Amino acid sequence: MFTRRSFIKTSALATAASFVNANSIFAQKNKIRNLTGNNRMQLTYRPYNLQLKHPFTVSGYTRTTTPIVLTEITYDGVTGYGEAAMPPYLGESQASVIAFLEKINLKQFSNPFELDDILTYVDKIAINNTAAKASVDIALHDLVGKLMGQPWHALWGYTATKVPFTTFTIGIDTEDEVRKKTLETGPFKVLKVKLGVDEATDKMLINTIRSVTDKPIRVDANQGWKDKHYALKMIEWLSERKVEMIEQPLPKHNLEDMAWLTDQSPLPTFADESCQRLEDILGLQGVFSGINIKLMKCTGMREAHQMITLAKTCDLKLMIGCMTETSCAISAAAQLSPQMDFADLDGNLLITNDLFSGAKFSNGKVQLNNEPGIGVNIL
Amino acid sequence: MFTRRSFIKTSALATAASFVNANSIFAQKNKIRNLTGNNRMQLTYRPYNLQLKHPFTVSGYTRTTTPIVLTEITYDGVTGYGEAAMPPYLGESQASVIAFLEKINLKQFSNPFELDDILTYVDKIAINNTAAKASVDIALHDLVGKLMGQPWHALWGYTATKVPFTTFTIGIDTEDEVRKKTLETGPFKVLKVKLGVDEATDKMLINTIRSVTDKPIRVDANQGWKDKHYALKMIEWLSERKVEMIEQPLPKHNLEDMAWLTDQSPLPTFADESCQRLEDILGLQGVFSGINIKLMKCTGMREAHQMITLAKTCDLKLMIGCMTETSCAISAAAQLSPQMDFADLDGNLLITNDLFSGAKFSNGKVQLNNEPGIGVNIL
Repeated sequence: MFTRRSFIKTSALATAASFVNANSIFAQKNKIRNLTGNNRMQLTYRPYNLQLKHPFTVSGYTRTTTPIVLTEITYDGVTGYGEAAMPPYLGESQASVIAFLEKINLKQFSNPFELDDILTYVDKIAINNTAAKASVDIALHDLVGKLMGQPWHALWGYTATKVPFTTFTIGIDTEDEVRKKTLETGPFKVLKVKLGVDEATDKMLINTIRSVTDKPIRVDANQGWKDKHYALKMIEWLSERKVEMIEQPLPKHNLEDMAWLTDQSPLPTFADESCQRLEDILGLQGVFSGINIKLMKCTGMREAHQMITLAKTCDLKLMIGCMTETSCAISAAAQLSPQMDFADLDGNLLITNDLFSGAKFSNGKVQLNNEPGIGVNIL
Repeated sequence: MFTRRSFIKTSALATAASFVNANSIFAQKNKIRNLTGNNRMQLTYRPYNLQLKHPFTVSGYTRTTTPIVLTEITYDGVTGYGEAAMPPYLGESQASVIAFLEKINLKQFSNPFELDDILTYVDKIAINNTAAKASVDIALHDLVGKLMGQPWHALWGYTATKVPFTTFTIGIDTEDEVRKKTLETGPFKVLKVKLGVDEATDKMLINTIRSVTDKPIRVDANQGWKDKHYALKMIEWLSERKVEMIEQPLPKHNLEDMAWLTDQSPLPTFADESCQRLEDILGLQGVFSGINIKLMKCTGMREAHQMITLAKTCDLKLMIGCMTETSCAISAAAQLSPQMDFADLDGNLLITNDLFSGAKFSNGKVQLNNEPGIGVNIL
């Protein structure tokens, strides 16, 4: 029970405790309004190419580099970092991202705290360009978190220690190379395999991995199977080989067959290409068991955070994924990971020229740190 | 474009700028772990009775007081304030709220920042008790916002100036009293009327108000109309008298007739009793035009914030409502109001013994302040 006196006393303490930070920010806002506008948000960017440790093959293509664009948003001497990663199938390039970023005028906003209005404006500039939008969203979140002195996992009220194990991806390769790569996955508790080339290759990959380890495997078919009966036969074969789940077995628009497959499947099914953004989720109830959220698909942290709410309401399980990207975008995605059933955040571990340190892989998990924003520093 | 040098420089600045706040909180957390546990969260509470300025009648009952329970959560010398308001129809009393609060053990949590886990735990203690749960949620949000030095509208990325006009409620009364009350609504731009007693009373209320003002009116029927054809006839009559919207015209479980009515209605329809919590929203697509979110129905600010995301995805309009309550719960609800199409936040203006100052009515709106947490102080 409390008294009026304790009420007054604690109220005064609370005001004192919060005085420095609350006032500094809103004093800045007032100051800016009286200035010439020089202290508005400034967005800068530059292209960069990620070098892959191993050539990367999924059903359809092989590559040795991934183009990205690095972003910065600066306000009142503080800088937030962001990134757009553009694997070819997303339809974005360094040129298209930069063309998009050139259209953005952040100087119309008086401060970065009005995230909702700023990101609604950015989203409306063009229909697609989701990676370009994510590069702004991530930099803005990093900036706002730094100005507030808080990491986003704390701003969202998540428990940092609840991050799930992350997978490490074994790309499609020869039997010898797959065996070698599998033996290099020592610290990882769970593996991920991209299937969907042809039946012989798919089974060779799984059998080769199983010849050297019994770690759980998660499978991504990348829409590679066209027939639901064939897909079910493959999933049943996989489920007998300690595979935990199957991602995007069928083409993304074939939701009718997908609902049948999820109903028959002994493994949980996850939507990747079928689930790009928030608006896709309602249509996936009963079609998949869960969704794979990736910042580069869904325009960034703000929409990803909303997707968690919607997916939970729709009884869909949650997975956080990534592209090949630096520790910047990985650390941004990691902020959401305490809410996830599965994590696939190995993008930064597949490259040789990362620019950031941030959320670090340890004990099988991408561990959150307590640094503000997305928790990254320049290497 | 940026250089590696600017990268490093701004990174260092960012770390310096956020040092004080980020470190104080996480230093506290570390300190607590080394202490005896005395510095855990402490929840206290006491019953209080709100005195109404006017006896309050809605279809079904009249009352002159509203029982509430005030809560405090204290952590490291900072206190957050909360409140449970119990209008009779919610099924909660001071005794039931206190019995619920007695079951809560916050000392099992090492710090208040793990909002998601704490409030998930509180929600699972019992099935209903939504006002009791809200009293914990509000106090915890106030505490965390104060510890972070931020108001919740900023933590959610909302633009504080975007609050909508709020309604002022004219209770069911005699013609003379209604005329007198209407003439007292000078500063309010929009009125709210509770209908549903009988046709003669309903029409008298609207005609009486219209005899002295042409301010827009919003109507709450509180499930008072039992027949969809009668409801449509009344809504058509109302729409010719500058009524803007209609809340809960039919009984809460009659969603089939409600979908028909929304389809026929010249006015947007809003769910109140039909929409208690997040889980109700999916079933209301196409049934109502929008939903009325109230903290005492939905367990508080965290779920209310999630309901915004879900309602927007389901193309439902948004309204924030209240009970008769102090400026504590009103200021908590006001944090969400920049996202709302309509606001009905007059609960604190209907009482004579408020205990708090907080979000203040001005220029027809409940205006947000920049104080941390929910922005209240003890009077």
